[in-house]
Amino acid sequence: MEDKRLGRHILAEFYNCDSEILKDTEAIEKYMVEAAVRAKATVVKSVFHTFSPYGVSGVVVIQESHLSIHTWPEYGYAAIDLFTCGEEVDPWIAFEYLKEKLKAEKWEIMEVDRGIVEKIYKYSNKKYDNIVYKQKIL
Amino acid sequence: MEDKRLGRHILAEFYNCDSEILKDTEAIEKYMVEAAVRAKATVVKSVFHTFSPYGVSGVVVIQESHLSIHTWPEYGYAAIDLFTCGEEVDPWIAFEYLKEKLKAEKWEIMEVDRGIVEKIYKYSNKKYDNIVYKQKIL
Repeated sequence: MEDKRLGRHILAEFYNCDSEILKDTEAIEKYMVEAAVRAKATVVKSVFHTFSPYGVSGVVVIQESHLSIHTWPEYGYAAIDLFTCGEEVDPWIAFEYLKEKLKAEKWEIMEVDRGIVEKIYKYSNKKYDNIVYKQKIL
Repeated sequence: MEDKRLGRHILAEFYNCDSEILKDTEAIEKYMVEAAVRAKATVVKSVFHTFSPYGVSGVVVIQESHLSIHTWPEYGYAAIDLFTCGEEVDPWIAFEYLKEKLKAEKWEIMEVDRGIVEKIYKYSNKKYDNIVYKQKIL
């Protein structure tokens, strides 16, 4: 069966999170990696950075795209992106896990299809047999 | 002057790119870092990964959030995210530069505000004086 899109991308706005957690780079990295694992993604690499006076930025590169976070502890706010490919990985599991771990009291979400197959066909000047997301082997 | 939002996030779908470029991890990393520099972002770290048989995933963590790319050379397609904070950095410069370097013939874009100040106020149980994006010092 052909896929409709290569990837799913959840953009999440987390409000009223626990500010102490949003400052804690080690905890944030642990949660982001664990979120990837729970979503059944394969972690390739993670990069996290602490800002002064506070704030964390980090990305978990997964075989199926990436998860990223940027935190503003001073406003209790975090911007999270969960971009996954293939049907095996479920970004919503990562979303639920992170919402709980960061103790977000309010949130807003948007899900965006990435690499819509119909558009790849439409805009291409080549012919493709069957567009599917293939689990890439490292 | 108070900001309206902490960050701007461009989601770009690039179609009909040059497949050879989309396979070339070294070139892609160079272009992504250069895109960040041209947009006047401060590069913190970059992580790039080559997949087998081909395909590149990479993220440039910048002081003002991140730029990411995932390529499907077999379909001439790349998914690009340009997430920047503050008024000093212009993600559209990065967009134009990458469009040219990857030789994208078609593209679709969406710009999403992240960390909308009004919502941080609305959803918070705390009082904030003045919400602004502060250039963070490393």
